Amino acid sequence: MPTPLQPAVSDLIANWINPDIQAMIAYHVPAATGLIKLDAMENPYIWPASMRAEWVKIISQIDVNRYPDPEAAALKIKLRQEFAIPNNLELLLGNGSDELIQILLLAVGGNDHIVLSIEPSFVMYRLIANWTRIKYVGVPLKQPDFTLDINAILTAIKQLKPALIFLAYPNNPTGNLFPSELIHQIIREAPGLVVIDEAYAAFANASFIDEIATYNNLLVLRTLSKMGLAGLRLGYLIGTKDWIEQLAKIRMPYNINILTQVSAEFALHCKDILDAQTKLIVAERGRLLQYLSRLPQLTVYTSAANFILFRVPRSELVMENLKAAGILIKNLHGSHPVLDNCLRVTVGTPEENYKFLTEMQKICTNRS
Amino acid sequence: MPTPLQPAVSDLIANWINPDIQAMIAYHVPAATGLIKLDAMENPYIWPASMRAEWVKIISQIDVNRYPDPEAAALKIKLRQEFAIPNNLELLLGNGSDELIQILLLAVGGNDHIVLSIEPSFVMYRLIANWTRIKYVGVPLKQPDFTLDINAILTAIKQLKPALIFLAYPNNPTGNLFPSELIHQIIREAPGLVVIDEAYAAFANASFIDEIATYNNLLVLRTLSKMGLAGLRLGYLIGTKDWIEQLAKIRMPYNINILTQVSAEFALHCKDILDAQTKLIVAERGRLLQYLSRLPQLTVYTSAANFILFRVPRSELVMENLKAAGILIKNLHGSHPVLDNCLRVTVGTPEENYKFLTEMQKICTNRS
Repeated sequence: MPTPLQPAVSDLIANWINPDIQAMIAYHVPAATGLIKLDAMENPYIWPASMRAEWVKIISQIDVNRYPDPEAAALKIKLRQEFAIPNNLELLLGNGSDELIQILLLAVGGNDHIVLSIEPSFVMYRLIANWTRIKYVGVPLKQPDFTLDINAILTAIKQLKPALIFLAYPNNPTGNLFPSELIHQIIREAPGLVVIDEAYAAFANASFIDEIATYNNLLVLRTLSKMGLAGLRLGYLIGTKDWIEQLAKIRMPYNINILTQVSAEFALHCKDILDAQTKLIVAERGRLLQYLSRLPQLTVYTSAANFILFRVPRSELVMENLKAAGILIKNLHGSHPVLDNCLRVTVGTPEENYKFLTEMQKICTNRS
Repeated sequence: MPTPLQPAVSDLIANWINPDIQAMIAYHVPAATGLIKLDAMENPYIWPASMRAEWVKIISQIDVNRYPDPEAAALKIKLRQEFAIPNNLELLLGNGSDELIQILLLAVGGNDHIVLSIEPSFVMYRLIANWTRIKYVGVPLKQPDFTLDINAILTAIKQLKPALIFLAYPNNPTGNLFPSELIHQIIREAPGLVVIDEAYAAFANASFIDEIATYNNLLVLRTLSKMGLAGLRLGYLIGTKDWIEQLAKIRMPYNINILTQVSAEFALHCKDILDAQTKLIVAERGRLLQYLSRLPQLTVYTSAANFILFRVPRSELVMENLKAAGILIKNLHGSHPVLDNCLRVTVGTPEENYKFLTEMQKICTNRS
């Protein structure tokens, strides 16, 4: 029985929710049940039975009634070991890199600060900047190959003095690895922080971790998601003690749950298995690139990640045909003007890729 | 080899990190290894072997290479069932209530909006308001019994027009349950949202969930942490579709990892076991209150939660003596002026409580 004098919910929302959030449309993840899932940059390989059995033994020892270690000390030690992170650098952990991106944006927010990135790139930079109320500027990549427009970026840096720059290396959704000299140039010219997002580092054999000691304004963002642990949601940020100390202040004290801490640590003990899976993915990426490039009507972009971007005459039609064949990839049409009719396929198992290629061949030669 | 022309890290931090964050001191969680842990409002009971075995069987089926269900649909169904959440209400899940508090603050932030709470209460309201750049005002509770100062609150509401009010019910760290009529009055007078934080609902037998349909501006915040699942980090916010739809826009799409989703759902299937543990805690709370009240030199406050607040002549001395006896409780001295020499003990197992009481008796009768 609502009191008659109460304002309507719609009026309350209009009055009190930030207008930018009111205007936002929720991020939608399409249903994938029963489909071959090549839409989300997941490693397609499950764990071997022996690894699973060992994991479950460790899980069975966990007491979930207690709060997790707020520092995740054991997991951090393992991350340091496996990714050769020098002792003079510190780590900050998040629920996926998403949480760390939000921490970074909150840390530099206020005071009319600006965050800069390139477009198109990982959409969460812009989205989270929007709801943390920090002005976001995206410098367009060059056409037609999505290369860095270094002059435009350096001009933007001079004019806007960004507090924070995000650079995905390799870039998502374009898949390319920007030349490292250009990244160095950006880091040197940036007045504020530069975060190199190495979510796809496992597939690229390139990293700026070793440069953190060289530049006072450099941080590197990583995630375990693309190396086979997407379900655990673990991201990590690497930087010098002074930076991480500031950022750690606005991390929720128990943000990484106990099951993720223990499971990620365990999985890193078996990193050789995950690395072998990554190698398979890289080999399959080469095969996919080669076959896709031969198909008529496609523009295929090179990739240093675990996905391939390509352009078709009519992306919606291709999506429909693939879906009818039981395959889900990502339609980027509409997400950014330069991605008109662009699709992104995640590298799957050889069987999955075969099915995808077979279907693409049908679509390209018969129907479109 | 740092380039000589680079600014120092300290200058970069001073220039680019928000001054409020620079001024903050990181939230510190004291080490508890080897101690009887009565500091963190944890349920002290671990899972019986049969429950653990069933859980592990389910865990062993999980493929962590895939992203978790972004909607956590199965877990939401179970939460609805077990907590009798009506079908016309929606749920928003977070990594602990902390993440949901941040979502709420980000949603109403900007435009000079103000958030209101009482003091002392859950510290995260103020802390997160600080780093999300929304002005926080805390209305002091009445002395000496930490009751609601309804006139001061209603005056603050009229003057400040808060976009959001947090009320912990029961309150932490004071433990008391405010009279429901006063909460109703606050909800009716508030121009914006009111969030009733029911983190300790399991111990209080009181809730505002059934009032959500009555008031257009009411949301209820809950967590599984205090009912035995602190390690999983699962909070949930209950509200009407319109509100949850707005707030869901600024939730990270895959915020709840797969292990927490599956384990929380499983634990709720065994809710009778957790409820029996809660009953033991409530019975022990009564015993602790009774014995503590008899000790000389203590002021003991009544509690509707799983902890008890009490005041001693010298809190630091009591902490030291308890620690020497292997017991960790929480010293609130210094956290707020009205909490001078206040300590907070979480209700443990009968054995733990006995040890704590024995030690307190020694401290109160012999030493202080």
